Amino acid sequence: MRAEILSCGTELLLGHISDTNATFLAQSLSSLGIDLYFVSQVGDNLGRIVETLRRAWERSDLIVMTGGLGPTEDDLARESISTLLGETMQMDPQLEANLRENFASRHMAMPERNLKQATVIPSARVLPNPRGTAPGWFVEKDGRIIVAMPGVPREMYRMWEEEAVPRLAAYTGGSIFTRLLRVWGLGESTVEERLDPVLHTTNPTLATYAKSDAVDVRVTAKAESRTRAEEMVAEMETRVRQLLGHHIFGTDKDTLQSVIGTLLSTCQRSLAVMETFTSGLLASTITSHPGSSHYFMGGIVAWNPELQIQMGVPRETVEQFGAISPETARAMAGAIRQRFGVDYGLGVTGVAGPEQQEGKPAGTIYVAIAGPHGIVDGQGPGWRASREDQRRLATLAALNLLRLHLEGLK
Amino acid sequence: MRAEILSCGTELLLGHISDTNATFLAQSLSSLGIDLYFVSQVGDNLGRIVETLRRAWERSDLIVMTGGLGPTEDDLARESISTLLGETMQMDPQLEANLRENFASRHMAMPERNLKQATVIPSARVLPNPRGTAPGWFVEKDGRIIVAMPGVPREMYRMWEEEAVPRLAAYTGGSIFTRLLRVWGLGESTVEERLDPVLHTTNPTLATYAKSDAVDVRVTAKAESRTRAEEMVAEMETRVRQLLGHHIFGTDKDTLQSVIGTLLSTCQRSLAVMETFTSGLLASTITSHPGSSHYFMGGIVAWNPELQIQMGVPRETVEQFGAISPETARAMAGAIRQRFGVDYGLGVTGVAGPEQQEGKPAGTIYVAIAGPHGIVDGQGPGWRASREDQRRLATLAALNLLRLHLEGLK
Repeated sequence: MRAEILSCGTELLLGHISDTNATFLAQSLSSLGIDLYFVSQVGDNLGRIVETLRRAWERSDLIVMTGGLGPTEDDLARESISTLLGETMQMDPQLEANLRENFASRHMAMPERNLKQATVIPSARVLPNPRGTAPGWFVEKDGRIIVAMPGVPREMYRMWEEEAVPRLAAYTGGSIFTRLLRVWGLGESTVEERLDPVLHTTNPTLATYAKSDAVDVRVTAKAESRTRAEEMVAEMETRVRQLLGHHIFGTDKDTLQSVIGTLLSTCQRSLAVMETFTSGLLASTITSHPGSSHYFMGGIVAWNPELQIQMGVPRETVEQFGAISPETARAMAGAIRQRFGVDYGLGVTGVAGPEQQEGKPAGTIYVAIAGPHGIVDGQGPGWRASREDQRRLATLAALNLLRLHLEGLK
Repeated sequence: MRAEILSCGTELLLGHISDTNATFLAQSLSSLGIDLYFVSQVGDNLGRIVETLRRAWERSDLIVMTGGLGPTEDDLARESISTLLGETMQMDPQLEANLRENFASRHMAMPERNLKQATVIPSARVLPNPRGTAPGWFVEKDGRIIVAMPGVPREMYRMWEEEAVPRLAAYTGGSIFTRLLRVWGLGESTVEERLDPVLHTTNPTLATYAKSDAVDVRVTAKAESRTRAEEMVAEMETRVRQLLGHHIFGTDKDTLQSVIGTLLSTCQRSLAVMETFTSGLLASTITSHPGSSHYFMGGIVAWNPELQIQMGVPRETVEQFGAISPETARAMAGAIRQRFGVDYGLGVTGVAGPEQQEGKPAGTIYVAIAGPHGIVDGQGPGWRASREDQRRLATLAALNLLRLHLEGLK
């Protein structure tokens, strides 16, 4: 199956955004065993979109489009497909009702121009979009497929994985099974070095991807049956786990926060945090896991060091060792544990940069856990990264320390 | 002048990297006043590169290629251009000498395959590459131009700016100026409806973009001089401001957090927050603005309602009205203002969903500000969105209420 990606949006041609949707789709097509030969970006212009679509229609079996499904005059994906195929867009009563209900539930009047988001053509089936007002289209005609999805990444990702990929399975033949092994604490090149003995196999294939919250190792097997593909992935997973050990914190949709969530829930333990330079990112990451209200009490963001003291860190500790020190991190963890009456208190302090603070360089991170069996602490490796990245990395370092502690590894 | 970008590299089609070269070039072309109509990514395959080049040659005046200039068999940009134009690649003695010298200076033997980096065709002039071994080509033929540059970003950026752009200046002329007006509190389609009287002008042009923290209105003018283009944008900005009023919170790189940062710094006022379901996102958004340590004290994340009470919200208020109520939001704002001794306390509570809480639906948001002149409150419009989006929207709604209050509009 020969595939082609077409991304619509003048913002791409003005360089306002990079086409990361194409990157995401390219990875996914590769793991599905579908050959991708061309990617194009076109502005919001009917003639140019149709021209590009027509060329794609001539040479590819599958065209994956993103963008151009919004309600405005600039959104021309539906019109382009209709023009290409010579079919007329018609109102779908069910889609129209959904759309009106969506606006009504938000107590908003629906602009008339939104109505075109409720249209469809005879060759298209509708792909639902629970995250937005633009449904997608799955078009099948003359042995070819067009999948049209919104350009907003979080809407597109969900629609692709939950709606489009299952429909494509009928065309790819054989069975493909993929598993992600999620790694924290090793860089991507170190992961590749350690995986060298198995990295160059052809089935299953291994690929590594640096993500914002992990390095992912993707294991993909192709076989005549799903069961066989799953077995092949499981065998490879065993070998990968031997090579990477406890750096693998989870699989597939696991995150560090979901893993500690499960551990805390299972043991019926509670958690609270005191953080300085991560400034709420630690609390918001922990609570992004549904069900966190069962174990997470809350937190203190001590942006001003006076707040550390007001919240129970001894003034002598801060004055003697500094607000950014292992001693203060430990005192923060202990203070929050006591003050909020939880099983585990987590304290995080450090320097986001770009300037140093208290003589400590940007990237300095001190983490401590106060728990039923005393205090455990850790130190970040001092990455050189942007201010936002330092905060993200410190948050993950803190969660990983807690994960290792709860798993009895630290 | 109609331009087109062609990026060569199988790694792009496997999703290993995003095409940020195209983004860089798109921005640069836009600022040069050159219209970019198409961008394509193609793998390292002679037939497919030539096919894409040929189509570009038919419809564009300028083709900017990146990638495919390395020494390996997979590097096919030179071969593709030669095939397209029917010209033969020949060794350039000066380039060959440079290349041999380059290897000699690094005490390395030059692999014979590198020699193709010293070839050129009659229509091409060579673009030097002090950062690598691959020179670029600047091809002029039949009134068209092809610029071929390496795919390594730092080599390409330099070559584009120092070698290609000066050569292109002879073809462009005129000047372009662009300004973003950033809008909060109106959906993209409502913004377009309000802008209807000016939306269809051709110079300046207007375009709207839905971003995660604003709807952006981009005003772009083209004129014989930069000064004239700036004047045209300023005139249009005045009209847009009349149509959108105080919903415009800033321009260009402004964010709601940078705007309130500037307002608080100017008035030397301090801020602290108490938040429930945004759970640290409000604090981390405020502190993402550099310089926030001058006005932001810190915050409380009261994930468990008991914490609201422990931090100074009267138990009666929570019990009578609920943890999610305008009354509790006001009490949170007052409590944090008093407890942390700041000028402004900001309280945010609500329901992230997906389930309702205390009988209030997902998307319910209550915001309150306690300041020197009493308490102001606001209510979110109750969007239907994912849990993460509810938190993001509530954070922005809180910052916007504070912005309007500090600007004397609420």
